[in-house]
Amino acid sequence: MTQSVESQLADGRALLADDLVAVETILASFITGKRHCADNAEVSLLAEWMEQFLAGGKRFRPLMCCTGWRTAGGQGTIPEAVASVAASLELFHTFALIHDDVMDGSATRRGRPTVHRHIAGLHSDHRDPNQFGTSAAILVGDLAFGWSYDLLDACALHPAQSDTVRQLLVDMRTETITGQYLDLLSTGRPVQATATALRIARFKTAKYTVERPLQAGVVLAGGDETVLGVCSDYGVALGEAFQLRDELLGVFGSPDSTGKSTLDDLSDGKPTVLMAIAYQRASASQRGRLDTLIGDGALDERDAIEVRDILIATGAAAAVEEMITTRYQRALEAVDSAALQPIGMTLLRQLANDAIERLQ
Amino acid sequence: MTQSVESQLADGRALLADDLVAVETILASFITGKRHCADNAEVSLLAEWMEQFLAGGKRFRPLMCCTGWRTAGGQGTIPEAVASVAASLELFHTFALIHDDVMDGSATRRGRPTVHRHIAGLHSDHRDPNQFGTSAAILVGDLAFGWSYDLLDACALHPAQSDTVRQLLVDMRTETITGQYLDLLSTGRPVQATATALRIARFKTAKYTVERPLQAGVVLAGGDETVLGVCSDYGVALGEAFQLRDELLGVFGSPDSTGKSTLDDLSDGKPTVLMAIAYQRASASQRGRLDTLIGDGALDERDAIEVRDILIATGAAAAVEEMITTRYQRALEAVDSAALQPIGMTLLRQLANDAIERLQ
Repeated sequence: MTQSVESQLADGRALLADDLVAVETILASFITGKRHCADNAEVSLLAEWMEQFLAGGKRFRPLMCCTGWRTAGGQGTIPEAVASVAASLELFHTFALIHDDVMDGSATRRGRPTVHRHIAGLHSDHRDPNQFGTSAAILVGDLAFGWSYDLLDACALHPAQSDTVRQLLVDMRTETITGQYLDLLSTGRPVQATATALRIARFKTAKYTVERPLQAGVVLAGGDETVLGVCSDYGVALGEAFQLRDELLGVFGSPDSTGKSTLDDLSDGKPTVLMAIAYQRASASQRGRLDTLIGDGALDERDAIEVRDILIATGAAAAVEEMITTRYQRALEAVDSAALQPIGMTLLRQLANDAIERLQ
Repeated sequence: MTQSVESQLADGRALLADDLVAVETILASFITGKRHCADNAEVSLLAEWMEQFLAGGKRFRPLMCCTGWRTAGGQGTIPEAVASVAASLELFHTFALIHDDVMDGSATRRGRPTVHRHIAGLHSDHRDPNQFGTSAAILVGDLAFGWSYDLLDACALHPAQSDTVRQLLVDMRTETITGQYLDLLSTGRPVQATATALRIARFKTAKYTVERPLQAGVVLAGGDETVLGVCSDYGVALGEAFQLRDELLGVFGSPDSTGKSTLDDLSDGKPTVLMAIAYQRASASQRGRLDTLIGDGALDERDAIEVRDILIATGAAAAVEEMITTRYQRALEAVDSAALQPIGMTLLRQLANDAIERLQ
């Protein structure tokens, strides 16, 4: 007797919801344990800022890890070791985002002040509140980075799995740092080659957000090379689509739902695929306007409207929508290419759908 | 037949010199391996900056780790696992210093531009070279942080030792971050309580520079609780002395030999024990001058001379010298308190001597 897709999906979603509850429990008790263990007011304070930041996260990477585990055959209640790896990914992400916001000098994240801004606000009597906020945020990030490894060390993983998972996470870390460096290098003078912009998206987001977390889950379920390969193809395609959607939302989205300003990417001159295509297709006068406006720290909403018009008029926005669709299809083809667990296939398809259409 | 102290010392020094050669070899081949493995130009570049920075280090923490190992009975050629842990400490230190320099906005370190300044200099055509240099330096630090754990993971340590060493290094990391946070919090408004300044010194330097690296070496040689206890007492005492010497050198030293400006600590308003004592002993007019000068970003050599005069006139400099001597003696008493390996006792005594009297 085969289960209907709807019923599989309902079951899958319920299981993943339970998985994420397990992840949440581990995160909370791990951080409480760390605070207790350090037994000093300073670590407690840094941990408090970390937890406030963590509270706003979507847990996308833990979700991918748990999905990978179920895709490769994991059944029933999620084992603590798997939930711990998923929680460790969220701590790593916390580190990456806090440092990212420091590097970009971003003011808001998840609809609230970024960690460095929040701390600066609390220390307005400091000689240099901004410098203090930035420095303390770097430390909160460093602490989260270290704790993500401690949480991994505390997992009772099978030695063979442990080595493979660690190698995946090492690769993920290297890829994330590489992507971030490329991003820094190009910010302020947007790249004009789509290939370069896509390379940044791949390193900075695709591998880190989807491919590696998914693969970690697959390894933990004892999945074979075939499943790993499927998850890699799926992960890179979906991750790129995710990043491209993020680029569109970063300019055209609603700050109320994204939690981010729609001016930042433009005023920072972020090296997006969207902008690379716009440059390629722009007329001389449009290009001149982009040169003036993109990367202008004082860019305002009126300027942003002008840029949005150019992005639409050149067809860049539509081209990016098309790239998202192509990648969405590529992700689905990867899912169909091998005999995965039915529940896994259903979940991967649905997650692809959610990620592409997400409004926030 | 007992060996003379001189001959023991010569033997001990020769062994430690060999140990450090082994550490150097591991560091170089590990980083080369990492560059090769990542196989991308960005990681290669970040690693190059890391290596340039590493080249100027004194390897004090690896030295302490190797000394701990020999103190607890390690003999002959140092095992690769021990040298790897020592090398991992140096990578962790690289991370800590690079981030520290970013937080302090320091211009020079080890007689050369700090990493963020160096990178900013290479990218003078970037829209904001300073911001770029700072961000890229944060990434170099993050990479070194991650690699210090990877190097540890790659060590073939005995499981029981592995857990204990990891816990020591976790404690060390927490202590370092705590000390750094306390330092940030007090910088710009120097603490006026000696106890608070000493707490910062203990967290930021003593445990991190001496106690934990030494204990890691002891654990790797299978040393017992007695040796660990001796190394803790010795380490904290010597580490504090080391930090106090650093405070004096930071104001009275020669930049040629310290590699650092003698104005930075004063213009930053670093929360040193030296300054806490000066404040306590200052007359109303001296205190008024300190309030004006300390933490003044524009402080010049003439102002520094005036501060030095106050530090001498109040007796603060002499009091710190006395505190160094007390701690030096306490370190030696710890060494004498238990039956350690003769070569270990000789080395610990000599290292204490070197550290206290170091001119750089």
